[in-house]
Amino acid sequence: MENTNNFHMSADEFRKQGKQMIDWIADYYENIESYPVLSQVKPGEIKNQLPDSPPTESESMEQIMADVNSIIMPGITHWQSPSFFAFFPSNSSGPSVLGDLLSSGLGVQGMLWATSPACTELETRVLDWLAEMLQLPEKFRSTSVGGAVIQDTASSAALSAILAAREKKTNYQTNDSGNLGNLVAYVSSHTHSSVEKAIKIAGIGKNNLRLIGVDENLAMRPDLLENAIKTDLQNGRIPFFVCATVGTTSTNAMDPLPEIGHISQKYNLWMHIDAAMSGTAAICPEYRYLLNGVELADSFSFNPHKWMFTNFDCNCFFVADRSVLIKTLSILPEYLKNQATESGAVFDYRDWHVQLGRRFRSLKLWFVIRHYGVKGLRYHIQQHINLAQQFAEWIRKSEEFELVAPAPLNLVCFAHKKGDDFNKKLLEIINNRGEMYFTHTIINGRYVLRMCIGQTNTETKHVVQAWKIIEETAKKLSSKE
Amino acid sequence: MENTNNFHMSADEFRKQGKQMIDWIADYYENIESYPVLSQVKPGEIKNQLPDSPPTESESMEQIMADVNSIIMPGITHWQSPSFFAFFPSNSSGPSVLGDLLSSGLGVQGMLWATSPACTELETRVLDWLAEMLQLPEKFRSTSVGGAVIQDTASSAALSAILAAREKKTNYQTNDSGNLGNLVAYVSSHTHSSVEKAIKIAGIGKNNLRLIGVDENLAMRPDLLENAIKTDLQNGRIPFFVCATVGTTSTNAMDPLPEIGHISQKYNLWMHIDAAMSGTAAICPEYRYLLNGVELADSFSFNPHKWMFTNFDCNCFFVADRSVLIKTLSILPEYLKNQATESGAVFDYRDWHVQLGRRFRSLKLWFVIRHYGVKGLRYHIQQHINLAQQFAEWIRKSEEFELVAPAPLNLVCFAHKKGDDFNKKLLEIINNRGEMYFTHTIINGRYVLRMCIGQTNTETKHVVQAWKIIEETAKKLSSKE
Repeated sequence: MENTNNFHMSADEFRKQGKQMIDWIADYYENIESYPVLSQVKPGEIKNQLPDSPPTESESMEQIMADVNSIIMPGITHWQSPSFFAFFPSNSSGPSVLGDLLSSGLGVQGMLWATSPACTELETRVLDWLAEMLQLPEKFRSTSVGGAVIQDTASSAALSAILAAREKKTNYQTNDSGNLGNLVAYVSSHTHSSVEKAIKIAGIGKNNLRLIGVDENLAMRPDLLENAIKTDLQNGRIPFFVCATVGTTSTNAMDPLPEIGHISQKYNLWMHIDAAMSGTAAICPEYRYLLNGVELADSFSFNPHKWMFTNFDCNCFFVADRSVLIKTLSILPEYLKNQATESGAVFDYRDWHVQLGRRFRSLKLWFVIRHYGVKGLRYHIQQHINLAQQFAEWIRKSEEFELVAPAPLNLVCFAHKKGDDFNKKLLEIINNRGEMYFTHTIINGRYVLRMCIGQTNTETKHVVQAWKIIEETAKKLSSKE
Repeated sequence: MENTNNFHMSADEFRKQGKQMIDWIADYYENIESYPVLSQVKPGEIKNQLPDSPPTESESMEQIMADVNSIIMPGITHWQSPSFFAFFPSNSSGPSVLGDLLSSGLGVQGMLWATSPACTELETRVLDWLAEMLQLPEKFRSTSVGGAVIQDTASSAALSAILAAREKKTNYQTNDSGNLGNLVAYVSSHTHSSVEKAIKIAGIGKNNLRLIGVDENLAMRPDLLENAIKTDLQNGRIPFFVCATVGTTSTNAMDPLPEIGHISQKYNLWMHIDAAMSGTAAICPEYRYLLNGVELADSFSFNPHKWMFTNFDCNCFFVADRSVLIKTLSILPEYLKNQATESGAVFDYRDWHVQLGRRFRSLKLWFVIRHYGVKGLRYHIQQHINLAQQFAEWIRKSEEFELVAPAPLNLVCFAHKKGDDFNKKLLEIINNRGEMYFTHTIINGRYVLRMCIGQTNTETKHVVQAWKIIEETAKKLSSKE
């Protein structure tokens, strides 16, 4: 029964292979600009190179890494390339990767305070740091009646907010009896699709989600919100939730938080603020105004894994009254009971989200904030905004292109004046060339190009090159028509 | 505007710090037995050592790691200790940590096939490997009408199963109109609490969750299940979902899959199988019988992050008909549209779970399966089972202790004959000493000790030592009474 024949990797082998992996990653970052940003493989191309069946015998790390290089790498779209301008970024940094590595190495599971007190307490402290950096009101801090938790994504945060709102409004009866039927939620027509998904998951039904119209800047119109609430009330419906967005995914539109907040309070709705990418900007004093009105909100979430140099996944979800969230999501089977929980002196974060198990994600966030310092984080966020504003300026001055939406921060929505088909072709040609990667959206029926600047290592030269590629490709395409 | 003042970690610094972190982790594993397994800190002790406010200026990795050593480490409960016998394990391995490190380094976000084809296609392939290793029926493979996806936890997998079941039963109307009210779900009284939580999240309401009684082995009684379904049907309710467990958390009880499966088919229920820890055993041919009946299921999930040397988080969720799952969870806003998705030739895994964003988790699973080979994995699983069976044998032969439930695999539920208070005290004294960590449950009102053997580096000597500690401590405690 003794382990005479042991298949585990020895500590010595781990040292050797681990250091080679660190070098591999450092080499990757040094050479990342040599890869096409958008993977050029066809469906099935990667899978077909992988064996149909798992290996019976042990294989060496050298064999595995050879396959990483030859099979996996051509199928990578390089989110960490400085010429990645697509979607929202998912940026990262050295200290974050190292904090995440430490988390993997420790391998603790922080479902309860007792299962690793440091996992819970570091998280609580670092999230209080973020509350300070964002100048969130006192109620969102652990030292008050609220607090925060790291979730995987803004989707899960929105779901948690909706569930807490649902239970608060139904006096915790939906958890017991099932959906009671008359609830109605509100978003703008530009709110992220994750809220619709969460409304469906929570059993509310998307027919009970009102899409409120937007103004000329694509921000939610409070007057239309209030009208919709009034109509629903007149029809015997129960308005319970509104999501306001700081920086919509399509265009970075900013919903008017104070107005929406006052309406929420007037009609007793739970107000959730989704600031997935743009929330990070509010750590800079000059952009803190974006969060004016957050004091009226019940919950707030943003993703350091988008634009704060913290690798995926890391969403920070703040609630103004943690007791509602905990009462909504708490489950306490016998096998998880312990003295610390029963004393009430600790947070058990499994009661703050859908999942039970959780990894030690605050380490990477702690590493990032300490490595950069608040000053360093502000510096780089400002740099990204400066670059985007420069790009927007070029668009404004261009005779062929025009801005299609305000560019308040690091996202620029623009289009060539030749129309949808031209812009579609332009995007496709450029992305297939591989020197940069950007994406599109539709605004008022119009096909629009999106340039989002937030990758860790994006510098002036990358944005200059991107604009040059866009201009020159457009010229060539024009001349062919 | 140029980055003259750059706060980022340079590639050279990353190489240096990364290698030190690898050494730190290797040292940790080499010295892990010198730490108390269960952290001995008091609530607030870690948090109070961390500054109230974030640092304005950049700090060095040396400062950060000094705090890891002095502040964080005392607050760690050592899940990777070979003397960790608590809950279910969350084991890990060198190749897994390295695969996860590579995932952090690449930093791709695999929400869509197009956002990194390798992230989707490696996942699909490796999950087909697992389907083969577990001898799952053809329908669960991507090459058929089903397929699989990596989720974070068994909680999220159960939620996804419940949502798909809800939509299938209501003809996709709940997503549109909200919960339609009459749905009823079934679990055993020993099913994991995550299913109750998911039933609440999905708007079904826990009053509509029937807890079916268990037999003398704590397995669900199919006759009681069928009776409950019949009663509900007579009362105009709509039975839609049943969860069968392969290895309950409390005692590792095995629900009778074939019988539950036939009832599910007869009454048209979605049958989900939760095999969170014990599913791994089925990769050994001699334990494959545990999954007999899986051919009748609609979904199946297990956690390589529990007992297959793959660090948290990694749940594998298999569905027999992927179209139902996708139709339930799909959302397609304009800004995510792309040619590959529209062609229908690819999987977009964001439609297979709650979250939109996802990291490249299949890398660690691929590394683990290749490093160990199927043979190596089987060998170590068998070793753990052998050790648990040896421990159970000691209990059987003991005059002071007795087994309280069958021990089919690697979990032994036992108790000292002196009763609940004695067992409570015994557990507390031993866990506070720090040489080992185990936990408890309640079975039929009785306080029972749980010894789960599944940590990567647990060998005979650790189990021998654990038994010696338990026996000796019990003797001392007896003599004091």
